[in-house]
Amino acid sequence: MLNNKIHSQIIKKRSFLCVGLDIDIHKIPKLLLKLDDPIFEFAKQIIDSTNKYAIAYKPNIAFFEAHGIHGYKSLEKISKYLNTNFPEIFTIADAKRGDIGNTSQMYAKAFLKDLDFDSITVSPYMGSDSVEPFLSFKNKYVFLLALTSNKGSRDFQELIMNNSTKLFESVIRTSRRWKNSDKIMYVVGAKNTKEIGNIRKITPDSYILVPGIGAQGGNLKEICKHGLDEDLKLIVNSSRSIIYASDSSDFAQMAENEAKKIQTEMEKYLNNIV
Amino acid sequence: MLNNKIHSQIIKKRSFLCVGLDIDIHKIPKLLLKLDDPIFEFAKQIIDSTNKYAIAYKPNIAFFEAHGIHGYKSLEKISKYLNTNFPEIFTIADAKRGDIGNTSQMYAKAFLKDLDFDSITVSPYMGSDSVEPFLSFKNKYVFLLALTSNKGSRDFQELIMNNSTKLFESVIRTSRRWKNSDKIMYVVGAKNTKEIGNIRKITPDSYILVPGIGAQGGNLKEICKHGLDEDLKLIVNSSRSIIYASDSSDFAQMAENEAKKIQTEMEKYLNNIV
Repeated sequence: MLNNKIHSQIIKKRSFLCVGLDIDIHKIPKLLLKLDDPIFEFAKQIIDSTNKYAIAYKPNIAFFEAHGIHGYKSLEKISKYLNTNFPEIFTIADAKRGDIGNTSQMYAKAFLKDLDFDSITVSPYMGSDSVEPFLSFKNKYVFLLALTSNKGSRDFQELIMNNSTKLFESVIRTSRRWKNSDKIMYVVGAKNTKEIGNIRKITPDSYILVPGIGAQGGNLKEICKHGLDEDLKLIVNSSRSIIYASDSSDFAQMAENEAKKIQTEMEKYLNNIV
Repeated sequence: MLNNKIHSQIIKKRSFLCVGLDIDIHKIPKLLLKLDDPIFEFAKQIIDSTNKYAIAYKPNIAFFEAHGIHGYKSLEKISKYLNTNFPEIFTIADAKRGDIGNTSQMYAKAFLKDLDFDSITVSPYMGSDSVEPFLSFKNKYVFLLALTSNKGSRDFQELIMNNSTKLFESVIRTSRRWKNSDKIMYVVGAKNTKEIGNIRKITPDSYILVPGIGAQGGNLKEICKHGLDEDLKLIVNSSRSIIYASDSSDFAQMAENEAKKIQTEMEKYLNNIV
């Protein structure tokens, strides 16, 4: 069975929370800045304090790339820390890559083999041969961007095609026909909770990753109403509201409290189902 | 005047050739592998031998990311080498990034400020706020993916909208209305030479970057017929046919010969115009 790592974590932790590691050096507690690798130390403490409630972690690659070699080292350490200490937890490289085949192959090697993430977010714009290289690694997965939660998602993703469907629906329907498409999951923004229900119908067997509850304003109840059924193929991400719950020495404890709060609400919705 | 670096190079060198640095460690001459940094050494020799004929260089970021920290160091050295020795030559980070605003801001910092490239390729899928952060840096530019040359470009880019235009046309028309859109140039694949003419009409004042003559099979004559006019807003890339012209000790000389051959043909088309 594919993705059983996610499913078993959801069952065990009564949670479908992914914690986004969008680690901004300007937002982490100042007391960490004197350490050798403040970004890793921050991530480590966040992971240590939230892993009881989180089924997945999603480092946002841009925030590491912005620090060049140091950022790469931090990212590598975070991936290794997760894989060593919490191998049951699912990891997502939020990289939004995608290029012609031989180039996507290189990105896939970087994130799924060398950095050893379980999955990567990929942009669909360049089509099948830009995504398929990411699907050729054993037990590795793709989160394909379908409908994102930002303002600009309206520019193209919601354009209506001449067959009366929207572009993001075409992205989902078309990608279901690609090689190894059973390993494709979809990113669906939280601001469009009714669309989550439509997408659920288009691809009932695919995991949906909803970014952006908390700081990005998504409503968990509405998301679950439309996206959660007995198959439990839903992952909901929160980044800033958890990792920046406090900017003082109690940041890890406050992050834990926030993660627990979200997990408690998730458990309520799960209890209605399983 | 925007982009005058490109224009003055085209006039001076009678060329609109961009050399793509898709440097695959398995394809470069074996004699370089004993050096400390084979990738940088290869790039340096390619740049030294082809800069008389090239107006731009385009490192393909995936090929560097696939080597982790070492790749980042090579990339950094290449950018510095170009900016120090050939500041008049335009540089393009072929990164195909694009994310929500605060994240694109991080990518923009990494490539346009820290690595100091003149421009970056960006995917349009997430819309305005995913692209605009790249346009906020002085004298820095974006190559927005419009129509790419790979097979998968048909999957979404050529979909017909309910207003009878194709998605890539919408990408171009819509992006012309974004803030600082005078700094957006477009990637248009070489296999669709007639589409280059259509795109030329949609946005007569924008540079078009055509990837993939040579190994990707684009036909320079056809590209120029549809894409080159008296404004000279055309850049044509060749990667593999130049940089892998030979895998022996004569690789730099053979790359020069290949670049010169392409420049000579470009000069012919330029002579018909200016």
